[in-house]
Amino acid sequence: MEYGFFNGQFIPLESASVNLEDRGYQFGDGIYEVTRVYNGKCFALDRHLARCRRSMRELRIPITYMDEELTAIHYDLIQKSGIKDGTIYFQFTRGTAKRTHAFPDQVIPNLSMTIHESTPNRQWQEHGIECLLFEDLRWLRCDIKSLNLLGSVLAKQAAHDKGLQGAIQFRKDTNLITEGSSSNFFIVKDGLIWTHPTDHLILKGVTRSILFEEIIPQLGYTVVEKAFTPEFALSAEEAFVTSTSLEVTPVIAIDGHTIGNGTPGKITQSLLESYRKLIQKECYQA
Amino acid sequence: MEYGFFNGQFIPLESASVNLEDRGYQFGDGIYEVTRVYNGKCFALDRHLARCRRSMRELRIPITYMDEELTAIHYDLIQKSGIKDGTIYFQFTRGTAKRTHAFPDQVIPNLSMTIHESTPNRQWQEHGIECLLFEDLRWLRCDIKSLNLLGSVLAKQAAHDKGLQGAIQFRKDTNLITEGSSSNFFIVKDGLIWTHPTDHLILKGVTRSILFEEIIPQLGYTVVEKAFTPEFALSAEEAFVTSTSLEVTPVIAIDGHTIGNGTPGKITQSLLESYRKLIQKECYQA
Repeated sequence: MEYGFFNGQFIPLESASVNLEDRGYQFGDGIYEVTRVYNGKCFALDRHLARCRRSMRELRIPITYMDEELTAIHYDLIQKSGIKDGTIYFQFTRGTAKRTHAFPDQVIPNLSMTIHESTPNRQWQEHGIECLLFEDLRWLRCDIKSLNLLGSVLAKQAAHDKGLQGAIQFRKDTNLITEGSSSNFFIVKDGLIWTHPTDHLILKGVTRSILFEEIIPQLGYTVVEKAFTPEFALSAEEAFVTSTSLEVTPVIAIDGHTIGNGTPGKITQSLLESYRKLIQKECYQA
Repeated sequence: MEYGFFNGQFIPLESASVNLEDRGYQFGDGIYEVTRVYNGKCFALDRHLARCRRSMRELRIPITYMDEELTAIHYDLIQKSGIKDGTIYFQFTRGTAKRTHAFPDQVIPNLSMTIHESTPNRQWQEHGIECLLFEDLRWLRCDIKSLNLLGSVLAKQAAHDKGLQGAIQFRKDTNLITEGSSSNFFIVKDGLIWTHPTDHLILKGVTRSILFEEIIPQLGYTVVEKAFTPEFALSAEEAFVTSTSLEVTPVIAIDGHTIGNGTPGKITQSLLESYRKLIQKECYQA
């Protein structure tokens, strides 16, 4: 059964509700995380909690839950819902207050969480996805995982309208690719792995960090953290996106142009394989 | 008493609630309007309703209320609350659906509304306000009055942190002023009224439109719709902001630099006076 949690209470999802004047509802004034549950265990939860705290600090939203509590609520949701493979979504908003732009005084952040059944799309991982190039319309603090997601929503919808599985965003003023519509984007060019550096224009993805810290060094690949143009990307041997939901998913075409030979690349496949081994180790063998 | 409205029901504000998975709450996927109530009458409601429809069309949110219905709900809120002078806030979100970025199928938009007592700040209108210059961090579709408001929230808060009443935003890449943190910004330079043109970087304010269509032509002033730098603004004779809440409010200093002689300018004052006369005519004499 799909469950929700709001400020201390577990409730069936359809009856979980928040106040009209929650600042999350009127300003998108809050932050969120999505974590994956494999075999009844949360994967990389510590990394998500660390990023959650960072997003809150950047927006000056007070931290009112300890990591131990958040972890416990994750496992309570898993237990109550009976879901073994799924995603847990949680968000903190600044709180509920009469509407005015500046931060209200003396409000307590609202925590809401949901759990849904889901598994990664193995079809996409095996065969790769085709993406649309789309202008990056988002604000200039994409390093904060905020609830202001309309830019990503429009990018994803534009891809769907064309029957494609994702969007790769680029800034029009610089003609440089930033990231996917809810993923980090990578190419392999002359054997090197390229991706946008972590600045204010992209989110520092948890899957990206795991690849960089726990997988790529072991596989002996070299990373170039440098922005590149769409034209440069089209000439790559391989391309892929990473996210908590997508894990490592090959991109085989962008805007109708085939990447490499139009099938998932070797380096991409090795990264996915190592990532899945890590999940096995953490969530199935422990 | 402060009242709320949600999808057909009038409710005391503290018990008005929405579902956790309302897309307004998780993506800021919606649009809003704020209208002023003077003497129990809505001012310029037709203009707000027209802009609301445009915002919805731009985001492809279906329109499910006729203008006549929305008008009737406005007046019901006024009557039920007993509020004679206040602001009515209303927003449409795309609807409630399991969280995924792209538009969900077959959802009905959610309409929520609130009414609060309030009157324009006469002190500010008489003496002028001091503003902060702040980098415009917002997305590139500011012409849509969306719920993705974190950029404006941060701008307003930065001003508050310095004890100032508002923020004037400028794009760092072009060094051009766009607008206030929730207002349009104008300067008077060599007797001409300058303001940013209505493109994707600013909201086409209702008060701005009323000035341009109903007031400025009668007063015989000339408007230059052209973006300008902060330096150019500092050398102006007068400056002011307009919005539904602020009406016409003089700006007497920006970033600590005095504008003109540091008091509300003559042209600014004449615009405010004419605007107030229009309100008198529409809401008090009718």
